[in-house]
Amino acid sequence: MGEVSADAVTLDLLREARETVRGSPLGVINTPMISWCQTTLPLDIHCNVHIKLENMQRTGWTKPLSLIRLTQNAARLTTEELSRISLTGSFKIRGVANQFARRPRGGHFVTMSAGNYGKSFAYASKHYGSKGKVVMPETAPVSRSILIQSFGVEVERVPTSCLMNEVNRCVQEDGMTFLHSYDDLDLIAGHASLGMEVLEMMPEPDVVVVCCGGGGLLAGVAAAIKLSGCDKTRIYGVEPDGACTMHRSFIEKKPVGMETKSIASGLAPPFAGTLPFELCQRYVEGIVLINDEEITAAVSTLYRSGLVVEPSGCAAFAAIVNGKIPELEGKNVVCILSGGNIGKDELVNFPG
Amino acid sequence: MGEVSADAVTLDLLREARETVRGSPLGVINTPMISWCQTTLPLDIHCNVHIKLENMQRTGWTKPLSLIRLTQNAARLTTEELSRISLTGSFKIRGVANQFARRPRGGHFVTMSAGNYGKSFAYASKHYGSKGKVVMPETAPVSRSILIQSFGVEVERVPTSCLMNEVNRCVQEDGMTFLHSYDDLDLIAGHASLGMEVLEMMPEPDVVVVCCGGGGLLAGVAAAIKLSGCDKTRIYGVEPDGACTMHRSFIEKKPVGMETKSIASGLAPPFAGTLPFELCQRYVEGIVLINDEEITAAVSTLYRSGLVVEPSGCAAFAAIVNGKIPELEGKNVVCILSGGNIGKDELVNFPG
Repeated sequence: MGEVSADAVTLDLLREARETVRGSPLGVINTPMISWCQTTLPLDIHCNVHIKLENMQRTGWTKPLSLIRLTQNAARLTTEELSRISLTGSFKIRGVANQFARRPRGGHFVTMSAGNYGKSFAYASKHYGSKGKVVMPETAPVSRSILIQSFGVEVERVPTSCLMNEVNRCVQEDGMTFLHSYDDLDLIAGHASLGMEVLEMMPEPDVVVVCCGGGGLLAGVAAAIKLSGCDKTRIYGVEPDGACTMHRSFIEKKPVGMETKSIASGLAPPFAGTLPFELCQRYVEGIVLINDEEITAAVSTLYRSGLVVEPSGCAAFAAIVNGKIPELEGKNVVCILSGGNIGKDELVNFPG
Repeated sequence: MGEVSADAVTLDLLREARETVRGSPLGVINTPMISWCQTTLPLDIHCNVHIKLENMQRTGWTKPLSLIRLTQNAARLTTEELSRISLTGSFKIRGVANQFARRPRGGHFVTMSAGNYGKSFAYASKHYGSKGKVVMPETAPVSRSILIQSFGVEVERVPTSCLMNEVNRCVQEDGMTFLHSYDDLDLIAGHASLGMEVLEMMPEPDVVVVCCGGGGLLAGVAAAIKLSGCDKTRIYGVEPDGACTMHRSFIEKKPVGMETKSIASGLAPPFAGTLPFELCQRYVEGIVLINDEEITAAVSTLYRSGLVVEPSGCAAFAAIVNGKIPELEGKNVVCILSGGNIGKDELVNFPG
């Protein structure tokens, strides 16, 4: 997708995408933003932080219980596998809503994903009546394949090293269209709607902190805020230290890959996206790193304060709490909790 | 506590209590209120519901990890017991903040509680430097006793039938002062602060739905709303059908008791409070009943939407979702999620 330049991302494009997302038949939520001081969350720095509860976003399905019954019958899942299915949402649905709205109806799409994107892709495929295929690493939970299949989308499980080859084969031999899970103009423009919503609640934030995996959300939010005229806003991306592709890309001044490892699997794709990298280079102040221990503690801290947030969704919060973001004193700060996809059986293994 | 009449609850008293709660050294939170349409929660009725996130309230302690370590050393708790300790908060801290502020410093207090009240009582005792004792049913989790003891408060575990006798003995023989966990003027006035906060966000709600155990929260919120001039607001209490003491008290026109049984243990004290009953009779439109299955489903539904809410804290939500509240169509409605005290290990046992 490297052929699209960062110049293609204009304020008009983002405004149009925002309207598309807002009116999407997928039912994207304008998620709540609450003040940190209205929570019991700890904070040593004196500043005005607002928390965007994107963990309360829709993930895809609306009738989980009936779906679970269907899935249970289909595959005789164990109770543990079942509880893993009943998950809350993430920001991915925003980008998917814009991506599908701008593709021809009745297309045949292929993507690769082990997680949130694949689920939103499957939900949108069913809704738009398009054929779809998700190429998934064979290490992903079987329950996730079944969930995606329950939307009528094909799943192929292959070794991680074969993912891209299989996608290329689908495109070349079977004539499918590849939808990228983070390096895609329409997807990033859809994610940007989150940044627009932030500005409606806090028109001129001093600092905005966003998690970074492939960089799609970070790029979209940063572009939305900067192109809306907030020149002085500092936007920080947060990556796990074991999956710091954007951090390394900043150093090498080109999008690079690495072997990634993190408890925040949603933030650990093997490459930084090309378009996300270009946008981040232009609009993002810096990338800060957190470790798995800080992520784990953040999941538990947020749980105790009443919020269900997955490890990947905690990154921005963990960076703020652990003093990783420079010069917050006295500032208006936005912290994005980007997703809540964590099963109860996974949660119980988090200490504290 | 029957000697205090409902006439004692005036708007001036509630305003004063509200200031006390707001400025309390216990750190009571003005919890967020969000719109139902900013969530993925299901709703078949077309109305404007706002959700007061009192599940994000403080429960008592501010440094849970260090406390857990302390407790672990003291008692060699199992991992399961430990995770049960790391809980989020409930409305109880509001009433306790006002109760302790209006009692002489250095007193010696006794209460009976198996749950949230006991924890807030212990936290306040430590903070105010007062001596305290909690008489607890011997069926309550040991981890809870240890937590309360960690604040320097004495715990005595007795058979449920002996609870009141032991409290009376402490008052008569040991000169302690009894603090009631729901039938107390100062406590109810403190709980009323939640109603005041609701009116700041939605000045004239058509309907307010509140859970009901002993009736302290319901009475306080109802009094706050009616005495503030919202004559037309309909306020409903929600009780589990297996612990419907207030419902029966309404029928018999006097506060009555029953043998209670519900998964929502916080809503299942054996008696309706006398003062709560008088206030509810005056200010509450009606009591609606929900069953344990509806409560269980509500815990899971809220979890999937990103919120940690205990069974007792779900009652108002469960009543709305299950169509138990009359005439909601087109109305401005407030739903109170009253507490989030549920351990991860408990949560994992909730299906769906």
